[in-house]
Amino acid sequence: MAKRQKREFNDFGLGEKSSSKGFRALNKDGSFNIEKTNIPLFERLNFFHTLVTMKWSHFFGFIFLGYFTVNIIFAVIYTIIGVENLTGTQGMTSFEQFMEAFFFSAQTITTLGYGRVAPLGLPANIVAAIESLLGLLFFALATGLLYGRFSKPVSKIRYSDKAIISPYQEINGFMFRLINPQKNELLDVEINVSVSMKRENSELRDFHILNLEREKVRFFPSMWTIVHPIDNNSPLFGLSTEDYNKKDFEFIAMLRAFDESSGQMVYSRSSYKPEEIEWGQKFVYAAKQSNGKTYIDVSKINESEKAELN
Amino acid sequence: MAKRQKREFNDFGLGEKSSSKGFRALNKDGSFNIEKTNIPLFERLNFFHTLVTMKWSHFFGFIFLGYFTVNIIFAVIYTIIGVENLTGTQGMTSFEQFMEAFFFSAQTITTLGYGRVAPLGLPANIVAAIESLLGLLFFALATGLLYGRFSKPVSKIRYSDKAIISPYQEINGFMFRLINPQKNELLDVEINVSVSMKRENSELRDFHILNLEREKVRFFPSMWTIVHPIDNNSPLFGLSTEDYNKKDFEFIAMLRAFDESSGQMVYSRSSYKPEEIEWGQKFVYAAKQSNGKTYIDVSKINESEKAELN
Amino acid sequence: MAKRQKREFNDFGLGEKSSSKGFRALNKDGSFNIEKTNIPLFERLNFFHTLVTMKWSHFFGFIFLGYFTVNIIFAVIYTIIGVENLTGTQGMTSFEQFMEAFFFSAQTITTLGYGRVAPLGLPANIVAAIESLLGLLFFALATGLLYGRFSKPVSKIRYSDKAIISPYQEINGFMFRLINPQKNELLDVEINVSVSMKRENSELRDFHILNLEREKVRFFPSMWTIVHPIDNNSPLFGLSTEDYNKKDFEFIAMLRAFDESSGQMVYSRSSYKPEEIEWGQKFVYAAKQSNGKTYIDVSKINESEKAELN
Amino acid sequence: MAKRQKREFNDFGLGEKSSSKGFRALNKDGSFNIEKTNIPLFERLNFFHTLVTMKWSHFFGFIFLGYFTVNIIFAVIYTIIGVENLTGTQGMTSFEQFMEAFFFSAQTITTLGYGRVAPLGLPANIVAAIESLLGLLFFALATGLLYGRFSKPVSKIRYSDKAIISPYQEINGFMFRLINPQKNELLDVEINVSVSMKRENSELRDFHILNLEREKVRFFPSMWTIVHPIDNNSPLFGLSTEDYNKKDFEFIAMLRAFDESSGQMVYSRSSYKPEEIEWGQKFVYAAKQSNGKTYIDVSKINESEKAELN
Repeated sequence: MAKRQKREFNDFGLGEKSSSKGFRALNKDGSFNIEKTNIPLFERLNFFHTLVTMKWSHFFGFIFLGYFTVNIIFAVIYTIIGVENLTGTQGMTSFEQFMEAFFFSAQTITTLGYGRVAPLGLPANIVAAIESLLGLLFFALATGLLYGRFSKPVSKIRYSDKAIISPYQEINGFMFRLINPQKNELLDVEINVSVSMKRENSELRDFHILNLEREKVRFFPSMWTIVHPIDNNSPLFGLSTEDYNKKDFEFIAMLRAFDESSGQMVYSRSSYKPEEIEWGQKFVYAAKQSNGKTYIDVSKINESEKAELN
Repeated sequence: MAKRQKREFNDFGLGEKSSSKGFRALNKDGSFNIEKTNIPLFERLNFFHTLVTMKWSHFFGFIFLGYFTVNIIFAVIYTIIGVENLTGTQGMTSFEQFMEAFFFSAQTITTLGYGRVAPLGLPANIVAAIESLLGLLFFALATGLLYGRFSKPVSKIRYSDKAIISPYQEINGFMFRLINPQKNELLDVEINVSVSMKRENSELRDFHILNLEREKVRFFPSMWTIVHPIDNNSPLFGLSTEDYNKKDFEFIAMLRAFDESSGQMVYSRSSYKPEEIEWGQKFVYAAKQSNGKTYIDVSKINESEKAELN
Repeated sequence: MAKRQKREFNDFGLGEKSSSKGFRALNKDGSFNIEKTNIPLFERLNFFHTLVTMKWSHFFGFIFLGYFTVNIIFAVIYTIIGVENLTGTQGMTSFEQFMEAFFFSAQTITTLGYGRVAPLGLPANIVAAIESLLGLLFFALATGLLYGRFSKPVSKIRYSDKAIISPYQEINGFMFRLINPQKNELLDVEINVSVSMKRENSELRDFHILNLEREKVRFFPSMWTIVHPIDNNSPLFGLSTEDYNKKDFEFIAMLRAFDESSGQMVYSRSSYKPEEIEWGQKFVYAAKQSNGKTYIDVSKINESEKAELN
Repeated sequence: MAKRQKREFNDFGLGEKSSSKGFRALNKDGSFNIEKTNIPLFERLNFFHTLVTMKWSHFFGFIFLGYFTVNIIFAVIYTIIGVENLTGTQGMTSFEQFMEAFFFSAQTITTLGYGRVAPLGLPANIVAAIESLLGLLFFALATGLLYGRFSKPVSKIRYSDKAIISPYQEINGFMFRLINPQKNELLDVEINVSVSMKRENSELRDFHILNLEREKVRFFPSMWTIVHPIDNNSPLFGLSTEDYNKKDFEFIAMLRAFDESSGQMVYSRSSYKPEEIEWGQKFVYAAKQSNGKTYIDVSKINESEKAELN
């Protein structure tokens, strides 16, 4: 029964078999250190997801390359039909004629249509009519993708580089700090912290959810210190730095909030390994008031000072 | 009172009358095996829903056909007005003139406007001005539809083909496996499993929700084994394969998750009938670690091996 | 204290003062029978909301009128600048020249740009450059509005025209039926029913939430009968038809669901007054099975037959 | 332990150190009186958020300026290539030629393409082909931004200018009023009110959540009076106006609702300081019924009359 309880805390669906020391389930940037293999291509593919999440440079590269390729294809078709079916062409060599066809295609697919060069006769007109329709659909798609890319809420929540073990009331606490450096308000912010540890004399890992001083704030306008009080209910109770290393701890934080500017939920994740934890420190206060206004110094998020542990 | 309790589990609103053997409420692909009849047309119609959910081939067919039809209609109008009101037309026969009008219409509705052919005089100009406005609205709509189609989150969750009855701790369990083969992260994933069974010596069916080892995971980066422990609270307790067939079991799974890439909730459903359940099997472990990274072999989702039941 | 409790059920924020007989807070179509007056114009205005919710005929009227008006304005500007600054114009009379300017404006704002008529010189070119930019922004807006109109999830949930008082187990129940006649799936459907009644010898009204047989279904593929069991905890317990009339009952139903095709929450509301309630009836079963498939006859939603009340 | 409890109510993550008198955490318009400093530029930047939330005048200024600048740049490029590569140019002086290039650029980037001026030869054609593509992407982006700006649900909830201390049942209550002056329905409306107060003889502030008569309404069609009963569990119990001033109270209200017309969650915030609280008043009833319809006079939201406190 106890065993069943523990599995409930395993948020990765990895069972309890979670390998040797030095293992990290969640990377510092919130991506998972897990790769899926042998996925049939058609299941892996998600055109929209790929185009919306790829880098801007790749996205524009994709658009430009697509534009270039499509124009080449249509230029070939117009050349096959015969450049004499395009009025106003002045190209003499076949290269010049191909270029005329290429630029005519570009003017058609963007619905620019200067008209210096225009299609004449059935075949050229049919191709041009189809190309302009394709062009409109292509740019309709680009419009959607650009909107999808821009409207996707990106939470750039910053986590303190290090977590600390700090005096907390009459006991100690495991703490780290968060801030939203952007101007958009995050509301109804929920945080969840769990720890994964190697079982003694075994390759298995156990997962525990940590009780927090508070798990939810309605507003998040300033810096927030997440506190897990290490009382006698805590899986960290009575453990030393050496234990943290030996058990190969991994602290996993997951945050969920409503982003007011986009009207959507945003998620953020991070993790701490034993080498990213400092003992006997306390965070420096980062807020300052003047003229009835509060100023939060974001650059102080990592600043801590020595403190006697209880 | 007990009766009222049971009806609470009927998630189909079908009352308890749920027919003869071989009945399946939910198809394997998650669609419902239920058809509504005698719906007044205007209530059934949902233009956006239809165009957003129809197959891509049908969608493009619809667009092309619409484009073709609208151009035919406007070509007829321009022909009635008289092709002599379009400058630059060179068609001699009425077929050629109709084609000139047709392509002029295409160049107008796409706002291409080469200008080799252009409207002259009031009637032709009025029609062209209206047509170009319609064209813009038409493609505004197409833009919205394409965005709607692409941004619709498609969860391609894969369920194991078979469920198994497997040893679980000191008892047995009903199990199946899930994986998200795509790269988009699913978060706050909730699953719910219920079973529908024929009542003895009756045409009625009863519905029960099954207790699960866990019903919610915060992350879903790997393969997840859903486990219903067959303890003495389970409606499956003490039943044999024959009972499963006789009672014409249908296990219904419903999953709900937040899709991080689209920022929307996604739902997924599937079902298992007795012939899709294997007894005395256990799932093969599909994760492997090397270089501190975990690899999940998606193709192993259906792999199981013999196991002694408790 | 009891008083405070009761006010909790008042979902209209109307306090308890809710007027004379014949009052209806919620119309049959789900709109509120409440009007706000003396709202400052700038607070009432919501451009997007108005354009997204207005009738299609009004919407297109608005677009066409806007198009016409803007072209008139620009035609005036081009005429003031002088039609001689537009190449290719052939108009002799000032009406003809104005029309040339009007259609040139239409060709510019739609970015059609045949080029038979084109701007020459600084002033005409500046106006045309601004007009084409405005045109693009105008149609960008139209694109957004059309998408907003189409993607707005419209739940056309049908409520049975009448509610019934029907035998239910050993007692009686207040019942009505719902169906979603459309193809889109509604998931995680929640319903809430309350009743408002005049207090005896007073102008005040009390509000009560009714306990339901079930308040939530995960799927809603068929017809759903909402049942409030009239047990001794019910505010309807022991009341007769006359009481319903005297207390001027209003039953208010509110439904909330996730619409799978749009990925959004949808809400639906309706209400029943005493004259829309039939006593001693039971709903006719509307589902039928053949070939292992279930058919729901939507047209039977209002069909009931006589039944002896308990 | 008591201390830990109190910190739970601090919704600003400011710890308990919250400064001197006259402090206001939340401005009247719902924005936070908190500023973040020393944020690295790349973390602060959120292109979409900035463009979606900036004022309309700034937004259009940005669009026009961008349009102008891009055309200047391309005009320079066409001039470098040589205006003789654009057919139909009639400019003599270099200024006239530059203007021809400028307007040709405008006609290209909007895909207007009159064709009176058209590119000739490889270099001019290449630049024009690229410019028209950029133009389409630029306006695709503008489409998305306009949609983002318009579809962003703006809740214009109005709070009464003053809160009042009013007789409530046998005790007194802290009250203020809300109304949604717009036509869009707000559903599932939740409100939360907390108070922050200076600790005696200390610079610290404590935070308390106030119990409300009701915290949630399903509909919000009329005016809603928020009531905090000042019973002996209330942090306001037994306090006088002087105490309110001495403790430098700040009442903070936060509202969350589902906006039916946009299909999104909306949030609203406001705050009251002691000078915005009137003692011994009660709100005037703002609803009136005639012809079975209820009329709410929005302008009466601030109207109150003298009332004897209990």
